[in-house]
Amino acid sequence: MKYTALTLFIILTASFASFGQEKQSRKSKKDNRGVAEKGLIKVSVMYPFAEGKTFNMEYYETTHMPMVAKFLGSNLVKYTIEKGVASGIPNQPLPYMAIGTFYVKSLDDYQAAIGPNRDAIRADFLNYTNTVPVILVSEVVK
Amino acid sequence: MKYTALTLFIILTASFASFGQEKQSRKSKKDNRGVAEKGLIKVSVMYPFAEGKTFNMEYYETTHMPMVAKFLGSNLVKYTIEKGVASGIPNQPLPYMAIGTFYVKSLDDYQAAIGPNRDAIRADFLNYTNTVPVILVSEVVK
Repeated sequence: MKYTALTLFIILTASFASFGQEKQSRKSKKDNRGVAEKGLIKVSVMYPFAEGKTFNMEYYETTHMPMVAKFLGSNLVKYTIEKGVASGIPNQPLPYMAIGTFYVKSLDDYQAAIGPNRDAIRADFLNYTNTVPVILVSEVVK
Repeated sequence: MKYTALTLFIILTASFASFGQEKQSRKSKKDNRGVAEKGLIKVSVMYPFAEGKTFNMEYYETTHMPMVAKFLGSNLVKYTIEKGVASGIPNQPLPYMAIGTFYVKSLDDYQAAIGPNRDAIRADFLNYTNTVPVILVSEVVK
């Protein structure tokens, strides 16, 4: 129930992010990447692979993710994009074609930022994929 | 057939990973975490949530992951651990209880290091979980 509320705004964002570059630059001087991220909230948008499903990485990287990043503003510490290559288990299909991840300081602020922009984000989906993402909200332990 | 192609691709990707590593070393001085990781290979071990499935995060963090990290040696750039909190989609179950991720320079070296230790790694699973992980090999795009 609580999580339903937590995640109400997340579903349609299927992607997001921006540059928390200022904070990041400061931290990276002392820098221990793992410790620096500890306690942050990750929102991972995972695009499952299946026969006939497509994903345009170039559009995702150059247009969609930067758009969502702008919406998130200074709450966003960083975002990452990865391209699925294979399953790590022999003879298993590729689990995900791509994953976009937003590292944010506050999930509340994330939801508040995404809410009013949900339609724009949603409308952009069709420009790069025909698959429906799985979305995981997690906490960085290490 | 398709997976044979995928495997080939992984091998090729592994060489690219080492390549990207040189670039990374140079860049990490000015630093931008996202850019610093670009080109690395990620091996994400994702533990699905389901009724009756358990996961002991303390054991995973203090014993299992450090053990695997040792096997990987200098090929391992870093590893991360995250704890699943919720699905980002309303009324959907939590996708994963936990995810452990290894960032490596070379997938070949990763496989060479894991191979002889696979039995030890698998035997340790029972000490912290009763679920079977999904494993994704991916490439850091950003």
